[in-house]
Amino acid sequence: MHETDNAFRAMTNGEWYFDSAVTIQKRDATRIALQKSGQILDNDARMATIQKLLGHTGSDFFIETGFEFSFGENITIGDHFYANRNVVICDEAPVTIGDYCKFGPGVSLLTPYHPIDPLERATKKEISSPITIGNHVWLGANVTILPGITLGNNVVVGAGSVVTKSYPDNVILVGNPARVLRKIPAK
Amino acid sequence: MHETDNAFRAMTNGEWYFDSAVTIQKRDATRIALQKSGQILDNDARMATIQKLLGHTGSDFFIETGFEFSFGENITIGDHFYANRNVVICDEAPVTIGDYCKFGPGVSLLTPYHPIDPLERATKKEISSPITIGNHVWLGANVTILPGITLGNNVVVGAGSVVTKSYPDNVILVGNPARVLRKIPAK
Amino acid sequence: MHETDNAFRAMTNGEWYFDSAVTIQKRDATRIALQKSGQILDNDARMATIQKLLGHTGSDFFIETGFEFSFGENITIGDHFYANRNVVICDEAPVTIGDYCKFGPGVSLLTPYHPIDPLERATKKEISSPITIGNHVWLGANVTILPGITLGNNVVVGAGSVVTKSYPDNVILVGNPARVLRKIPAK
Repeated sequence: MHETDNAFRAMTNGEWYFDSAVTIQKRDATRIALQKSGQILDNDARMATIQKLLGHTGSDFFIETGFEFSFGENITIGDHFYANRNVVICDEAPVTIGDYCKFGPGVSLLTPYHPIDPLERATKKEISSPITIGNHVWLGANVTILPGITLGNNVVVGAGSVVTKSYPDNVILVGNPARVLRKIPAK
Repeated sequence: MHETDNAFRAMTNGEWYFDSAVTIQKRDATRIALQKSGQILDNDARMATIQKLLGHTGSDFFIETGFEFSFGENITIGDHFYANRNVVICDEAPVTIGDYCKFGPGVSLLTPYHPIDPLERATKKEISSPITIGNHVWLGANVTILPGITLGNNVVVGAGSVVTKSYPDNVILVGNPARVLRKIPAK
Repeated sequence: MHETDNAFRAMTNGEWYFDSAVTIQKRDATRIALQKSGQILDNDARMATIQKLLGHTGSDFFIETGFEFSFGENITIGDHFYANRNVVICDEAPVTIGDYCKFGPGVSLLTPYHPIDPLERATKKEISSPITIGNHVWLGANVTILPGITLGNNVVVGAGSVVTKSYPDNVILVGNPARVLRKIPAK
């Protein structure tokens, strides 16, 4: 079982790792499952195949076509989730998304990164860092979220922003790198 | 008929609305039509299925694979149009594109937005605002155009720009947010 | 043969050209080959069809699904290449990628551009400029590389950056437009 594979465990735990036969096989299986899922025309059947691949999804879940991820099982999504087309989640480390979140088309959540040193990077040593998104978060179209980022509740991120730092509740972020445009009154 | 559905009419008119059985059915039908269209290998046949979904297309129309939209019927495109791969148009409100326009790969035109207030957003209340693109406009790769934007004639937008305001004729825009890099001599 | 077509030759050489029957037929053939390749579930078989389309690939080559290009034969890739999902390379001019390169999801390499003058652009006159990427280069997710750019060895480009100028070895680039964040110690 991949849950007991040292590489898969280290990867998910945010430790340095090298791909193993198990991580490679699991990536392949996910890729093939997504290719098959992309050919399903019936929405309910398509959603069922995707939800089966994900670690957890809540009630009232919908995602448009073109949704891609690395493994799926490291993704946890709360209730009332909607994501538009071509969303990519690299879930080498856990990705946790709260309730009432909305993602525009082309959103990317990226947990993996590589050594900056070119010779170390060439060894294929890898590492990843979890992403946590609060409740009631709206990520606009083509937003990119980097490894290790936490966003609080009620955060709104403007289209095309690149989020390179964590931010607390009740802020609107825009730009590359994303900065606070203004605060939203707390509820 | 969806033309007489109050939700579809309000959505297209830029008023607050909630999805209805009609808007949901229409989104489903478009998604399925696009999935089928993406499997057509013959270019002329693929173009024919896309043009049938769009509100209006002119002569000399070509779009590469990966073209996605919400409904299609709210999209009006003039003559001599070329768009590269993976263009996304969320046409909840009307999207009007002039003659002689060129879109690079990954361009997004987005008419919908949501309430900033998290509790209002959770009600799934939606709104959208039209996008109007003039004649002879060139949008570079991965350009994002936000709701309500109008671009004049002869506008050029640099790759990766996020256009958050309207601009008149004869300008080159670059950046996130996009700013005028320079003016182009009027014709 | 397209190698002797004047338009294809001018295009590849970075001269002004108009599409010919040959360039149009070649674009069609590539698009269809990519659509077919996207439906292949077996990874080795999918890789084989892609490698056959590319000008040169080295040993230890892997690219995830959603890889798109214009022709393929103008793309040269060194050994130990990995690219994540939805990478787009517009290889109207040559694109040369060194050894040990890693591309995140959504990377775009774009060699073509158009006249800025709207009436000249309407004639469909086209031009392109080569892109050269050194060894040990890591392009983060959603990085856009513009026509004519050369990146040296060991360059790292942060996610979401738009690279509008060439840069030498051993730099980390971030932003839109990309700027040097810091230098990496030379090896």
